Amino acid sequence: MTAVRYGIIGVGNMGRGHAISLLGEIKDAELAAVCDISAERLEWAEVNLPEGVKRYSSPEELFAEKTVDAVLISTPHYDHPTLAIEALNAGYHVLIEKPAGVYTKAVQEMNDTAAAHPELKFGIMYNQRTNPLYQKLRELIQSGELGEIRRTNWIITDWYRTQNYYNSGGWRATWGGEGGGVLLNQDPHQLDLWQWTIGMMPKRVRAFCHFGKYRNIEVEDDVTAYVEYENGATGLFITTTGEAPGTNRFEINGDNGKIVVENGSLTFWRLRTPESKFNAEFTGGFGNPECWKCEIPVEKADGDQHKGILRNFTQAILHDEPLLAPGEEGIHGLTLSNAMYLSSWTDNWVDLPIDAELFHEKLTEKIKNSTFQKEASEDKALEVRGTH
Amino acid sequence: MTAVRYGIIGVGNMGRGHAISLLGEIKDAELAAVCDISAERLEWAEVNLPEGVKRYSSPEELFAEKTVDAVLISTPHYDHPTLAIEALNAGYHVLIEKPAGVYTKAVQEMNDTAAAHPELKFGIMYNQRTNPLYQKLRELIQSGELGEIRRTNWIITDWYRTQNYYNSGGWRATWGGEGGGVLLNQDPHQLDLWQWTIGMMPKRVRAFCHFGKYRNIEVEDDVTAYVEYENGATGLFITTTGEAPGTNRFEINGDNGKIVVENGSLTFWRLRTPESKFNAEFTGGFGNPECWKCEIPVEKADGDQHKGILRNFTQAILHDEPLLAPGEEGIHGLTLSNAMYLSSWTDNWVDLPIDAELFHEKLTEKIKNSTFQKEASEDKALEVRGTH
Repeated sequence: MTAVRYGIIGVGNMGRGHAISLLGEIKDAELAAVCDISAERLEWAEVNLPEGVKRYSSPEELFAEKTVDAVLISTPHYDHPTLAIEALNAGYHVLIEKPAGVYTKAVQEMNDTAAAHPELKFGIMYNQRTNPLYQKLRELIQSGELGEIRRTNWIITDWYRTQNYYNSGGWRATWGGEGGGVLLNQDPHQLDLWQWTIGMMPKRVRAFCHFGKYRNIEVEDDVTAYVEYENGATGLFITTTGEAPGTNRFEINGDNGKIVVENGSLTFWRLRTPESKFNAEFTGGFGNPECWKCEIPVEKADGDQHKGILRNFTQAILHDEPLLAPGEEGIHGLTLSNAMYLSSWTDNWVDLPIDAELFHEKLTEKIKNSTFQKEASEDKALEVRGTH
Repeated sequence: MTAVRYGIIGVGNMGRGHAISLLGEIKDAELAAVCDISAERLEWAEVNLPEGVKRYSSPEELFAEKTVDAVLISTPHYDHPTLAIEALNAGYHVLIEKPAGVYTKAVQEMNDTAAAHPELKFGIMYNQRTNPLYQKLRELIQSGELGEIRRTNWIITDWYRTQNYYNSGGWRATWGGEGGGVLLNQDPHQLDLWQWTIGMMPKRVRAFCHFGKYRNIEVEDDVTAYVEYENGATGLFITTTGEAPGTNRFEINGDNGKIVVENGSLTFWRLRTPESKFNAEFTGGFGNPECWKCEIPVEKADGDQHKGILRNFTQAILHDEPLLAPGEEGIHGLTLSNAMYLSSWTDNWVDLPIDAELFHEKLTEKIKNSTFQKEASEDKALEVRGTH
């Protein structure tokens, strides 16, 4: 194989962007096919994509024809695990859009299937892992510069969405359609980066989700989640779609100081002496370890984003390049959001790993009892340039 | 009366500073007496204060002699309500140091006594209410500039204290001696400002206090508290003495944008159209209200601090000037910290106003069961210049 032939399943909002990228911007990759159950979206493909790109109206057709080497799944969230399992079993490399799915039970099955196919690559579109800011943050933590972590506070409240946005698709912001709100649609990247950069998952979660607080929707649009880690560290994740202008500020405290990622910059307030050592040796009354404000150099660009993941996935298939975002890791961020719902629904602590069966039961109940009727509105693809 | 004669009860850390201030820096005020049960501290007064300043070894003596018009109570926290009640009943104006006390049951009795003596002024040393930053913040909120409040997040983790600090007094950081840790000793100002600036108390609290997490103490040195307000707004209060360099960042979100108080500056990200109006009228897919970053002018000084409160209290007595920090308001901040303990001890929500009897019972139990023995260390007065 000299070039990877991709088939995109789902050419709605995100899929169209990926299709355009694969038309020449990704080395050693080509767009061979698209697949969508919507006639309207296939028509878009017919008008906008080269003639050579095959069009399928069902994934089964695509899987049967063997015209592609890899599939990129950018359907609604619920279908990610199901389609990934089918594609893997049909012998295709699989790259899924985020989130990995809606509930961990299905995602675990997907991961098990992937594990049974070590000959196939399995990736997830965690394009923010290509962002130099978070790569640098992770590197500073993994290399020990920050010391043992004590606190991780992410305020990510700049996902502003209006009621009209929610009205733009009948499936949007419903338990049955998306399976969640801001945590499932807007936050998957941050939920991934929160644990990927620090290299730790919490051991328990106490969250406070507010459902339809700012918008006329049945899912959450405001969340505060408190977590505790095995090593005693604590963390917060604060998010909403209802505030403007909102904030995106990730602060991590460790034995060697504090790192803040905000406004595209990474600042490391570095202690000259680790706090634990200073504390052990200090003999005065009031005193603080000497602290240097260090502006850490980070490329100003956002990184290669979606294209970076596509390039990496392509080279992984062709030359066994290590995956930046292995598909199996999608379960981490989803576990965090599932735990946040479960904690809110039960008004109690949730230990990790979560009870996947219990979560699935409760979600099924929400879908069954949903009486949410949204204002009728065209189910159209929104322009998503500039979103992630 | 042309000048107010003050008697200071307790000339430890804070009392000494107040004594110096009253020796001429406060218009229409004079230092007439000091009182302390410690011979060593009275000796300090004999050496350092003018001969005319009377010295008493018990509050009862001071109260009996009628050589002062007002008393300033700067004893350990537990004694504030008891002494204030005695002083009010003996006919003296009363200014207490923060916190108002250790448990609200006693503070409510103090407030009831003050209410029974409308002829006497009753104040609390909330000197941070003189800080131009927080005065301006309060004014922007009270005047409606920010619109209805949605979120109040205060990260106040820059109260770094070493083990040696805690070892400097046997009473420090014990249930019996101080009645708490960072919330009782370091945070009373922020707990006051948190509700004073926004003009709202929460309706319920869910807090996560960690006791002796970073230091060998029996009280809390790390706290994350989540609150909900009657109007649906949420808030966070995050504090510790165990981190360096820590953060002091107060972010308040409202219908008209966001205010951040950090690094001595007040920034107002002001929406040109209120969010609620923008949301109601927006007909596109993705979009945000136009936002202006406004640097709000604030005097760079810290304000008059303790001296400002002393001046204001003096003029209140002489000329009925309105009190900046009425003593009765001390119960608000204390209610918040009491609620945080109660929530942690019961691992559950706490509704406000709290069950004052229950809190007192639980605190008494903590004191009774305390087996905490600190390393023997001299009970000396620490130099507190530069602290608040």
